Amino acid sequence: MTRTQVAIIGGGPAGLLLSHMLARNGVDSIVLERQSRRHVLERIRAGVLEAGTIELLREVGLGARMDREGRVHDGSGIAWEGKPHFFIDTRKFTGRPMMCYGQTAITEDLYAARDAAGGVVIDDAANVALHELTSDRPHVTYEKGGQTRRIDCDYVAGCDGHHGVSRQSIPASALRTFERGYPFGWLGIMSETPPYPEICYCYHSRGFALASQRSPMLSRYYIQCDLDASIEDWPDDRFWEELKARCPKGMADSIVTGPSIEKSIAPLRSFVAEPMRYGRLFLAGDAAHIVPPTGAKGLNLAVSDVFYLSRALTEALKAGRTHYLDGYSDMALRRVWSAERMSWWLTTLIHQFPNEAPFDRRMRENQFDYLLVSERAQASLAEQYVGLPFES
Amino acid sequence: MTRTQVAIIGGGPAGLLLSHMLARNGVDSIVLERQSRRHVLERIRAGVLEAGTIELLREVGLGARMDREGRVHDGSGIAWEGKPHFFIDTRKFTGRPMMCYGQTAITEDLYAARDAAGGVVIDDAANVALHELTSDRPHVTYEKGGQTRRIDCDYVAGCDGHHGVSRQSIPASALRTFERGYPFGWLGIMSETPPYPEICYCYHSRGFALASQRSPMLSRYYIQCDLDASIEDWPDDRFWEELKARCPKGMADSIVTGPSIEKSIAPLRSFVAEPMRYGRLFLAGDAAHIVPPTGAKGLNLAVSDVFYLSRALTEALKAGRTHYLDGYSDMALRRVWSAERMSWWLTTLIHQFPNEAPFDRRMRENQFDYLLVSERAQASLAEQYVGLPFES
Repeated sequence: MTRTQVAIIGGGPAGLLLSHMLARNGVDSIVLERQSRRHVLERIRAGVLEAGTIELLREVGLGARMDREGRVHDGSGIAWEGKPHFFIDTRKFTGRPMMCYGQTAITEDLYAARDAAGGVVIDDAANVALHELTSDRPHVTYEKGGQTRRIDCDYVAGCDGHHGVSRQSIPASALRTFERGYPFGWLGIMSETPPYPEICYCYHSRGFALASQRSPMLSRYYIQCDLDASIEDWPDDRFWEELKARCPKGMADSIVTGPSIEKSIAPLRSFVAEPMRYGRLFLAGDAAHIVPPTGAKGLNLAVSDVFYLSRALTEALKAGRTHYLDGYSDMALRRVWSAERMSWWLTTLIHQFPNEAPFDRRMRENQFDYLLVSERAQASLAEQYVGLPFES
Repeated sequence: MTRTQVAIIGGGPAGLLLSHMLARNGVDSIVLERQSRRHVLERIRAGVLEAGTIELLREVGLGARMDREGRVHDGSGIAWEGKPHFFIDTRKFTGRPMMCYGQTAITEDLYAARDAAGGVVIDDAANVALHELTSDRPHVTYEKGGQTRRIDCDYVAGCDGHHGVSRQSIPASALRTFERGYPFGWLGIMSETPPYPEICYCYHSRGFALASQRSPMLSRYYIQCDLDASIEDWPDDRFWEELKARCPKGMADSIVTGPSIEKSIAPLRSFVAEPMRYGRLFLAGDAAHIVPPTGAKGLNLAVSDVFYLSRALTEALKAGRTHYLDGYSDMALRRVWSAERMSWWLTTLIHQFPNEAPFDRRMRENQFDYLLVSERAQASLAEQYVGLPFES
């Protein structure tokens, strides 16, 4: 039997960052990860950081490589077929920078930091189960090397993503869920080519496309695809051709193509579970909520959850005050819902919807026309895109 | 046979204002109204004027009584059940005033002005029909006093509302229509009582309510009702009770009730027909588009259509240049679509929707939460509420 203060379920960026921040505050934790470390590090995920995420990573000592390798930028473009180019000018309207820096790199940085500090991250932990969550002595079991092991703890942090065991350990009657599906997916590729210089969302009658990036030699491109599309139908040549057909000509001409090193299709969905607490279990990140990737809020939301949760757990375990823990779900959810709305809104604005009512389409077109002419609307979008501030 | 330069179909505010403005520019017109003048003047309609409408009415010599009897205000409130009071502060964010002044009063002012100038307004004109609209010699026929009469003209202006003959005279193949229904109506009453001092939109779990006003002794209140509601089911007492139940307590306590002098139920809809021209027929106001009353854009849109159309007709008839006429539909529609979006958005935000998906409801709630905290979002709403500027 092992004892720790916080058992953290999931060794992705949310769990690792929580473990890291708790350790800096003198709180012990153990991270349980179902997969191998190699698997975790090979996952391709987000890469656009909000201003608050950048600041937080720096504050907790994780900014060195990010500031060296990440690319600071001032916003993102929207290229709307047949209309002037639009730029979500976060620098102009908020004075705050954003950054492209891959989630994979952040995860590497977090593993390095945990290793250097002697943090315990148990990978290949099978059949993780959460027990006695509503008592003041919860514990966690898992299997490794053919043996069942047990960790006693004060609190459990569920950072194991949408399909993880944490949220599933909460009785359905104790959770309220909110969900929205979208009638399309994103087909994404990664290629070791110099990225298009601007993160650019493309609205096009053929379907949405996105040029994004992870580093100076790592490009990430997406195109809207049907829900039943399959990767086999999309060899690289066809992908590049379709991507370019959805971009303005000047942009298409300057996109550098190359072999894909990863290719995947993901459906888009919005999901929130409330509250983000059940007894001594606290959910953070994708375990509690999913946003469509449009607007790049997913990783940033995980970071803000961890900010609130690390403070709350520290306050409870070091000072015996639980008011932050008691307020965690409400506080985190305010930011979650704002990001859900922003992601839903941007997703709705710039995709093609099959069988869309002509009135709805005009509403979206006029929304963009209004953005083009209104500094006030531009400012409002920019502050949401750069990320609303954390509450203190 | 009579001849005029512009035959104007419809003697509501759009048609009368067009006739008035054309006359000031030296262009002849004749207004044909299906109803009696008394009927037109007894219709209860809108009463919240955008800044641009106020300015235009003053510019064309119609400001005297409006400035004497209208009530200037600085915006409108949103009372959201359980949340802090919100004020759409048009004065703060745009520096521009709005005004409560009833459409009935504007119509009276317009009749007085047309009478004083010797303008021709033919009422009780039955079976109005439009002819040869795609020729350069259109004409209009109508029946009056048992006789069929004919007016030859250069242009026809269709200002006869949603159910009028003008839009119906355009072949379906030459029009594209956009439509949105809403699953509720508004039950409205007028009472000769001092109004609640603020125009206030109330979001409430029992349904939406609105406190509005026409003059210092004329109140206008609405409550959201089912589409199949009937006036017989809503005696005054029940109306006042339900209205007050949907307002914050302090507001409910200060509402002065009294006998209704008018009571009606109207469905809510959004509708746009494109283009607003067919040959020599030009549509303006409700003949071309309908907005739900939330946000009070209907009359204001009619005024902006008339602004563009009077300029275009004058330019064509006085100077022989048709570029404004050729651009009329596109120019008017830009403002129309903005108002359509604003009206649809505000309608969606503050009503109760039967069988609404929980996710959608949260989106609306968070939209309001965001408005409460973001000056940028407040500024964007204020500029749309006060009315976007006319294009020159």
